[in-house]
Amino acid sequence: MPEFFNVLPPDEARELLFRHLTAVLPAETVETANALGRVTAVTITAPHSLPAFRRSTMDGYAVHAADTYGASQSLPALLQVVGEVPMGKPAHITLQPGQAVIVHTGGMIPETADAVVPVEWTQIITPTTTPTPPYEIEILKAVAVGQNVLQIGEDVHQNANILPAGHILRPQDLGGLLALGITHVQVIRQPRVAILSTGDEVIPPDQTPLPGQIRDINSYTVAGLTRQAGGIPILSGIIPDDFNALEKAARRALADTDMLVMSAGSSVSVRDMTVQVIDQLGEPGVLLHGVATRPGKPTIVGVVGTKPVLGLPGNPVSAMIQYDMFGVPAIYRLQGVKVMPRRGLVWARLTQNIASESGREDYIPARLSETDEGLLATPVFGKSNLIYTLVNADGLIKVPLNKGGLLAGEMVEVRLFD
Amino acid sequence: MPEFFNVLPPDEARELLFRHLTAVLPAETVETANALGRVTAVTITAPHSLPAFRRSTMDGYAVHAADTYGASQSLPALLQVVGEVPMGKPAHITLQPGQAVIVHTGGMIPETADAVVPVEWTQIITPTTTPTPPYEIEILKAVAVGQNVLQIGEDVHQNANILPAGHILRPQDLGGLLALGITHVQVIRQPRVAILSTGDEVIPPDQTPLPGQIRDINSYTVAGLTRQAGGIPILSGIIPDDFNALEKAARRALADTDMLVMSAGSSVSVRDMTVQVIDQLGEPGVLLHGVATRPGKPTIVGVVGTKPVLGLPGNPVSAMIQYDMFGVPAIYRLQGVKVMPRRGLVWARLTQNIASESGREDYIPARLSETDEGLLATPVFGKSNLIYTLVNADGLIKVPLNKGGLLAGEMVEVRLFD
Repeated sequence: MPEFFNVLPPDEARELLFRHLTAVLPAETVETANALGRVTAVTITAPHSLPAFRRSTMDGYAVHAADTYGASQSLPALLQVVGEVPMGKPAHITLQPGQAVIVHTGGMIPETADAVVPVEWTQIITPTTTPTPPYEIEILKAVAVGQNVLQIGEDVHQNANILPAGHILRPQDLGGLLALGITHVQVIRQPRVAILSTGDEVIPPDQTPLPGQIRDINSYTVAGLTRQAGGIPILSGIIPDDFNALEKAARRALADTDMLVMSAGSSVSVRDMTVQVIDQLGEPGVLLHGVATRPGKPTIVGVVGTKPVLGLPGNPVSAMIQYDMFGVPAIYRLQGVKVMPRRGLVWARLTQNIASESGREDYIPARLSETDEGLLATPVFGKSNLIYTLVNADGLIKVPLNKGGLLAGEMVEVRLFD
Repeated sequence: MPEFFNVLPPDEARELLFRHLTAVLPAETVETANALGRVTAVTITAPHSLPAFRRSTMDGYAVHAADTYGASQSLPALLQVVGEVPMGKPAHITLQPGQAVIVHTGGMIPETADAVVPVEWTQIITPTTTPTPPYEIEILKAVAVGQNVLQIGEDVHQNANILPAGHILRPQDLGGLLALGITHVQVIRQPRVAILSTGDEVIPPDQTPLPGQIRDINSYTVAGLTRQAGGIPILSGIIPDDFNALEKAARRALADTDMLVMSAGSSVSVRDMTVQVIDQLGEPGVLLHGVATRPGKPTIVGVVGTKPVLGLPGNPVSAMIQYDMFGVPAIYRLQGVKVMPRRGLVWARLTQNIASESGREDYIPARLSETDEGLLATPVFGKSNLIYTLVNADGLIKVPLNKGGLLAGEMVEVRLFD
């Protein structure tokens, strides 16, 4: 235990954890089309420019812009249409002065053209429904050089950095990569997260509890948050409150995973046992025991080698909020994500006072409702043992460290659940 | 084509679509532990109360509260500790007046006790490290009836509605269901969404484009958004700009899926062809052709039977923004979701003027940056043909229908990409 602080503010606690999470997991190659939510392992550059040829942005005529200068409704320019560039075909036609070529939106324009006149700005002199070139048109409005033309590389230039390492791939990123023919992409392997529940009272959800027993909740809320962050949850069982059993289970669970989470029970003796187990697992061990938040103060944050190890409070609300605060960022860090994904926030008017203590960050579950007066946030009060306070909430209201509470009627920021 | 409007505001367009999407897909039963992101098919009720027995929220002593009344540091109450309730075991002990029982956080308390005194408020009279009952303690502070006790049903009462139908399951919901032993849950089948790309110029991403050809982008951005909304994308190929080929492909793709999306090309003739194809597929057919937005005005929204059918503009930026506007809500509707998931928003200061036209909703990709002056939003300007305007953005700024633009320095709402 190289550094031990009794209670740290959450931001400092997370920084302390991050200082010990220096290693990123190994990379693997996957199909780009299946890489949604995965994290890039390297900087990706453009193998060629996009577009690779000059494209029209309108249905109309490719022209020499100079041939249209001065054109107007009353004094149109006269051009001869000499052909058409079909979609998906090269524009082989060479344009002579005074000539125009039919082009379609997205189609290639001839090398000798430098602008496109939209069809709406033209008039066919001999009106037939489908004239065949050659025929003559009047240009009713001038175009400038480059007008209605996408230039080579206007989307992205060859060799440009298109995505940095540590980037979480979104739908548009997949589209951007595939547009360049990047059909495979190097991403970081998904972190495998071992989840242990501890407690003599805890039984699997498919069993019927006897008096004094409760079903495991935390394994499943932690597994859900793990999946949302791109990790693979490995449910590693329910362990009784026994040092040797927990130490053995933790060691085995950590051996073939990248991170370990123990839902550590809420009694002081069980928490102390978890601290000792983490220290036994290897260096540096427990980094801190206690975070200045409510709920969740007795959270244990540790690292074994380069693997994060967390001891969560047994209360389901505390466990979930603390895992979101430390476990989720750790999963992103293991994938090389440097800037954590921005969380969705909404502003809403608070319907009731919230008391808090200065020097502590409070998180209060809140339900949102759309009303004539705008969005309202109603705190869902309840002890941190009550999972349904989270089920009945849409997000969390944060009361900052230095505030003594929030007043009814105040506008507050509600951090949305994913 | 029962209703035809040239250009509708997006909200009205979506309402028109929703009026025709009355059918919810069939339900199926899945394991609760694997149901993250799935949508409940029925109202779920609690099979029993939670907790099912009275639990202590502290490490301490279960007592008769009346035995502690008036107790203080200077005048402690004296109680005899007669036993312990081990974690996970029933509390069989019957408490006589003047007696106390050791209980642990989360443990059951005896039927005859009505409060718990935290261990910190007590003092053992004969100090030994681990006294064995019977021994005597001093109570230094009184507790009220019910204090530090979770009552039966305090989390949720038997037969209470715990989740409505049409609810997207989150990590805490899985925990809440499993806490009640609900190991399987009825959810709506995931919508299968057929995705067709059309265009003589479009080739698969693994091929090398000849001059005039471009790789398919829209199939993959649409597939990504489909996955994020809980749908299953079915990539149904690239179809040339030919009415019969498109009609045949669309009919076949729609036959064994729940929704059809055609990335419809951007030239006027191809759009007209898409409208005709949708009308051929069945009633009611095209509902509207044109939405008052930029980008994305020429979007085609239709319904065949009860299946949504969309014709997206060919430009990748328009296609993605329009699919997010109509396709994503349609996927949720097919799953019976009534209230669309709230999107994450952030407020940021705009760095540049944005021009717009009144009577049209504009969406401008924007990049966010954290600075000393707070969060800044920089518009990523570029034609809607340029996928990298979305790759380089963190979200979209919306310019409302009735605004003529936004000014540099204004605070604007940025809608985050997922």
